[in-house]
Amino acid sequence: MALALLCHPTGHHNAGWLHPSTQAGASTDIDWYRSTAQLAERGLFDLFFIADTPAARTSNLEAYSRYPLFMNVFEPVTLLSALAGATQHIGLGGTVSTSFTEPYNVARMFASLDHLSRGRAAWNVVTSANDFAARNFGLDKLPPHARRYDRAREFVDLVGKLWDSWEDDAFVRDRTAGLTFDPAKQHVVDHKGEFFTLHGALNIERPPQGHPVIIQAGASDTGKELAAETAEVVFASDATLEAARRFYDDLKGRMPKFGREPEALKVLAGKPVLIADSQGEAEDMYQTLQHLIHPVVGRMRLGMDLETDLSDLPLDEPIPEDRIPRNSNFHKAYFDKIVEMIRSEGLTLRQLYLRYERGNQTLRGTATQVADHLEEWFTAGVADGFMVTPSLMPQGLERFVDGVVPELQRRGLFRTAYTGRTLRENLGLKRPPNRHVAPAPAMAAAK
Amino acid sequence: MALALLCHPTGHHNAGWLHPSTQAGASTDIDWYRSTAQLAERGLFDLFFIADTPAARTSNLEAYSRYPLFMNVFEPVTLLSALAGATQHIGLGGTVSTSFTEPYNVARMFASLDHLSRGRAAWNVVTSANDFAARNFGLDKLPPHARRYDRAREFVDLVGKLWDSWEDDAFVRDRTAGLTFDPAKQHVVDHKGEFFTLHGALNIERPPQGHPVIIQAGASDTGKELAAETAEVVFASDATLEAARRFYDDLKGRMPKFGREPEALKVLAGKPVLIADSQGEAEDMYQTLQHLIHPVVGRMRLGMDLETDLSDLPLDEPIPEDRIPRNSNFHKAYFDKIVEMIRSEGLTLRQLYLRYERGNQTLRGTATQVADHLEEWFTAGVADGFMVTPSLMPQGLERFVDGVVPELQRRGLFRTAYTGRTLRENLGLKRPPNRHVAPAPAMAAAK
Repeated sequence: MALALLCHPTGHHNAGWLHPSTQAGASTDIDWYRSTAQLAERGLFDLFFIADTPAARTSNLEAYSRYPLFMNVFEPVTLLSALAGATQHIGLGGTVSTSFTEPYNVARMFASLDHLSRGRAAWNVVTSANDFAARNFGLDKLPPHARRYDRAREFVDLVGKLWDSWEDDAFVRDRTAGLTFDPAKQHVVDHKGEFFTLHGALNIERPPQGHPVIIQAGASDTGKELAAETAEVVFASDATLEAARRFYDDLKGRMPKFGREPEALKVLAGKPVLIADSQGEAEDMYQTLQHLIHPVVGRMRLGMDLETDLSDLPLDEPIPEDRIPRNSNFHKAYFDKIVEMIRSEGLTLRQLYLRYERGNQTLRGTATQVADHLEEWFTAGVADGFMVTPSLMPQGLERFVDGVVPELQRRGLFRTAYTGRTLRENLGLKRPPNRHVAPAPAMAAAK
Repeated sequence: MALALLCHPTGHHNAGWLHPSTQAGASTDIDWYRSTAQLAERGLFDLFFIADTPAARTSNLEAYSRYPLFMNVFEPVTLLSALAGATQHIGLGGTVSTSFTEPYNVARMFASLDHLSRGRAAWNVVTSANDFAARNFGLDKLPPHARRYDRAREFVDLVGKLWDSWEDDAFVRDRTAGLTFDPAKQHVVDHKGEFFTLHGALNIERPPQGHPVIIQAGASDTGKELAAETAEVVFASDATLEAARRFYDDLKGRMPKFGREPEALKVLAGKPVLIADSQGEAEDMYQTLQHLIHPVVGRMRLGMDLETDLSDLPLDEPIPEDRIPRNSNFHKAYFDKIVEMIRSEGLTLRQLYLRYERGNQTLRGTATQVADHLEEWFTAGVADGFMVTPSLMPQGLERFVDGVVPELQRRGLFRTAYTGRTLRENLGLKRPPNRHVAPAPAMAAAK
């Protein structure tokens, strides 16, 4: 089970920051994050997750000033490092883009975080999906989707090589022999690829988890291929059980060709939740939040995911077919969903923005109803776990920890204490062996 | 006053890790760093500082396995972020190279650290000085010294622009008006330089210190020019009071042409210290440490700073003049010092490695003697403060905190409590105004 803070820490709902239960200055308040991570740890979550994009919007500020999408946030790896000391068990995951960083630096940062947290680091590999980010790194616009994924694949491969550049027991710290490490246990990476050339070894010993856990969320065909090849956790965002099953089976079905077992990848279904004492109360809260969305924000968010400017269109008429772009270059899954809603339901622009949510509809109801839903999905085998995104934070997380978690525990569906020493162990993922070390004969025989 | 952990946390002496008072596994033990930072904070140090290079050596491992020079260390910014939560007052400074990172990422990381620590971040700007680092980032070897400094100058300039891309009070968080920020207070950076092109704004609000404190240590002419233009703290490493005076006056004398007041830059003289109950005991400890240096390490360290391979030379004969390279491409100050020692003293290779120290000779004696020395330098006006590097850690720091600090306090030379709220305030550095905000009329008149 993961708690995810996506675009704004005050909650998954984009108007959450306007609700009096949230703290307006949360996004740069380490005390807020510390207590939130501790609350998630009290709820025995596997993972505390921070999304990111390396850019602030610089246009359409009329809308972004009303919708603080990554406009003012901690850098994820520094934030997670700070949280490592405030928590003991919960995994610490964050997004870092492969499009605007160097493999050596990223390998180091996550290895360092894994040591700082004693085995709780996770890296969400993204290729970034907006031109604002591109312009912060010398480009006019993003490279094409396929090209970004080619770079990502080589990047992840190279980072893995760096994490294996020392054997687990290389640092012997033997004062009698006067040796800090055994020179034979350094394995220099000599990489010449399409995007990167590197000759060297990481300057930190192998991470406690072997490799920090690799997360991905890409729902495009290219994204699924990369995930099947390299990811250990995938955040899914399907709205229905049947769609979730298709995604789950599709993704796991792609793994054998990369020589991977299905259990080596955990699919966490994204679950925006709004929990109240009754279903009616939850629905009222949801509608309250929806009507806090400023029209300029609603229109802009739709336009962003549809990858076109909708600012000239009337609010109360349907979006004309000829305004739908031919192809998506950013988040293909979001794009496809809006196109489908336009074509199948004939909604006006206003109806569409009030109804559209990235990913899927907020699950709203009592703690028991939410537990029922999660049990249904889990036992149907369409998810290995969930990525919970409360509409309001930290209130929604408190409701989850104090209501849904005990209910799932009563049903025998959720842990009652942390049992693993690392994130990897809690998730049920194997520790990757170092590629330079032959498995011990006894171990090999046991397989 | 800064505490600096340079190449190895177990102490400034390169054989410190072999001494029984140190902890062999300190370099990746966050508990060790946490208690050390807390000890420095008990001693009212301004700054806890971590040196770095983004590379592990991959050759000459016979020597490096006996001399753990950055072979296995935390990445500095993640480490400092973790320490932010374990301390309240002490500044947190670390090295990040401008040669192998992107300005947007570095601006973000230090802005994030400054928010996480509520105004205690400092960035040591270096250009890196070894080809091992170059090879981790797609290069065969480092660009020339001057070229690296050209990039560094543009890098620092651009990072400063990004830190000013939001006015201090841009984030109004006004729920009544539905505005998180005032769009008029975003100032987009539009930079087209020799090394970088960037169009954007930082995605975190202006740091508590305005700009995190800028540190530099370059002692070359190019390095001093860059420091005079941009640095706020400079680590010096002169061996004698007269050399320190020359450096100090030279550096401060370069500032007016950049429109800067001498007080805007604090020169901290590097002071390796070894403190004991008597001078004889300190000297004994020093000799004990010197003789723990393995000959392969002594020879290699000399060769590194002389920028040539000395492995074929006999230990007990002088280094021939024709083995001295014409020019330095890495640490020019270290290079010049060794050349001078070879030419003026005619030492054998063994004598040279037993006597040579990077920077200057370890100050060894009682707490009172160390306090006398610091007082002499401080009152002579050749240093604004000191960068203390104990030979052994944490033992040497304990000796300093419990011996030298109280002595300096009795003499009225050192604070008895933190008085500033930020590192900048403790150092006596002004908070830089945002370049996009005109000074208030009353303030301008007061000048």
